[in-house]
Amino acid sequence: MITLYHCANARSFRALWMLEEAGLDYELKLLPFPPRVRQPEYLEENPLGTIPLLIDGETRMTESSAICEYIAAKYAPELGVRPDESSFGAYLNALHFGEATLTFPQTLVLRYTMLEPEERRLPQAAEDYRKWFLGRLKGLGRILENSDYVAADRFTAADVSVAYAILLAGSLRIEEALNDPKIAAYWERMKARDGFKRAKQAQKLDG
Amino acid sequence: MITLYHCANARSFRALWMLEEAGLDYELKLLPFPPRVRQPEYLEENPLGTIPLLIDGETRMTESSAICEYIAAKYAPELGVRPDESSFGAYLNALHFGEATLTFPQTLVLRYTMLEPEERRLPQAAEDYRKWFLGRLKGLGRILENSDYVAADRFTAADVSVAYAILLAGSLRIEEALNDPKIAAYWERMKARDGFKRAKQAQKLDG
Repeated sequence: MITLYHCANARSFRALWMLEEAGLDYELKLLPFPPRVRQPEYLEENPLGTIPLLIDGETRMTESSAICEYIAAKYAPELGVRPDESSFGAYLNALHFGEATLTFPQTLVLRYTMLEPEERRLPQAAEDYRKWFLGRLKGLGRILENSDYVAADRFTAADVSVAYAILLAGSLRIEEALNDPKIAAYWERMKARDGFKRAKQAQKLDG
Repeated sequence: MITLYHCANARSFRALWMLEEAGLDYELKLLPFPPRVRQPEYLEENPLGTIPLLIDGETRMTESSAICEYIAAKYAPELGVRPDESSFGAYLNALHFGEATLTFPQTLVLRYTMLEPEERRLPQAAEDYRKWFLGRLKGLGRILENSDYVAADRFTAADVSVAYAILLAGSLRIEEALNDPKIAAYWERMKARDGFKRAKQAQKLDG
């Protein structure tokens, strides 16, 4: 049985959504955000204090996009792309792009406009990285000119990685993220998926 | 023939190192940093303006850690970890951890202490993310308690992803990165590899 430590709508949502898309059984442990501060005993499970933490037997993973790829490769090959497919490079690229390029910059917006106490807020850094995110997001617009999905013309783990960045932009009220109609339509497609809806429901029911 | 666009010692060094480890033929295109500013015609090749850009036939990739995984899976399986190995999850996790968790925070140090003009520098943001990086780096120390490598007890693409973050810390003079003797010894092992040395040499010879 897989165990997932999760905070509602945080990066760990990727893992939860992916578990639902794959139809796997799992135990969900819902934590308050940020867990390092509000549930310090979690540090015994994950000394980094970050979420997600996914435990699958001896395997322990903390990187949300890596978890998406792992679940696809181990349990749901229809949600992955094989090395012998022509889209394999695009698939791996989008898995990493969703987190390293589209999500990390947004965490600066979160930190320096909301999480830090007033005297430590940095409007310039928040604005620098809001713009940085929106600049990189144009890369998603270009991908979607040719397909409804980010790789292989079908829904894959890489869509979970990328679409979470759009969810986060909504939480942070970065409305310009949906200015490109191709990205807005993509986000509607992602939200309409049964797996997405079940994941949203699961994080409400727990705890 | 694979083509790699690269700036000396930037993230694209991962791809260069990996190409050398895999013993592949490639064409190296060395650009000044940051290419977006100093070689704007590069935007025609990669509209994001970022490096690396790896071109392999129809495949175009811009995420350095994804490129490492791609090269292993397509051309050098001995540098990857297969889904049926027990370390597969650790391998994927370290591939992502090296970039999203250990490298991105350091780019804030670079930006706000060096790249930005004086009046836009933000010592607080640079210091916040220097500390953030060092905190997350403890996770690497814990991994190295049990092995000389980050996954599967052998050198893999995930070591290229993680070790680049240590190289960057050296460039940024974050000396505390090597305070943990396990991490210092790991870095010595990585630098001593023939593939690493060949990659260092290749970026000198080009252009």
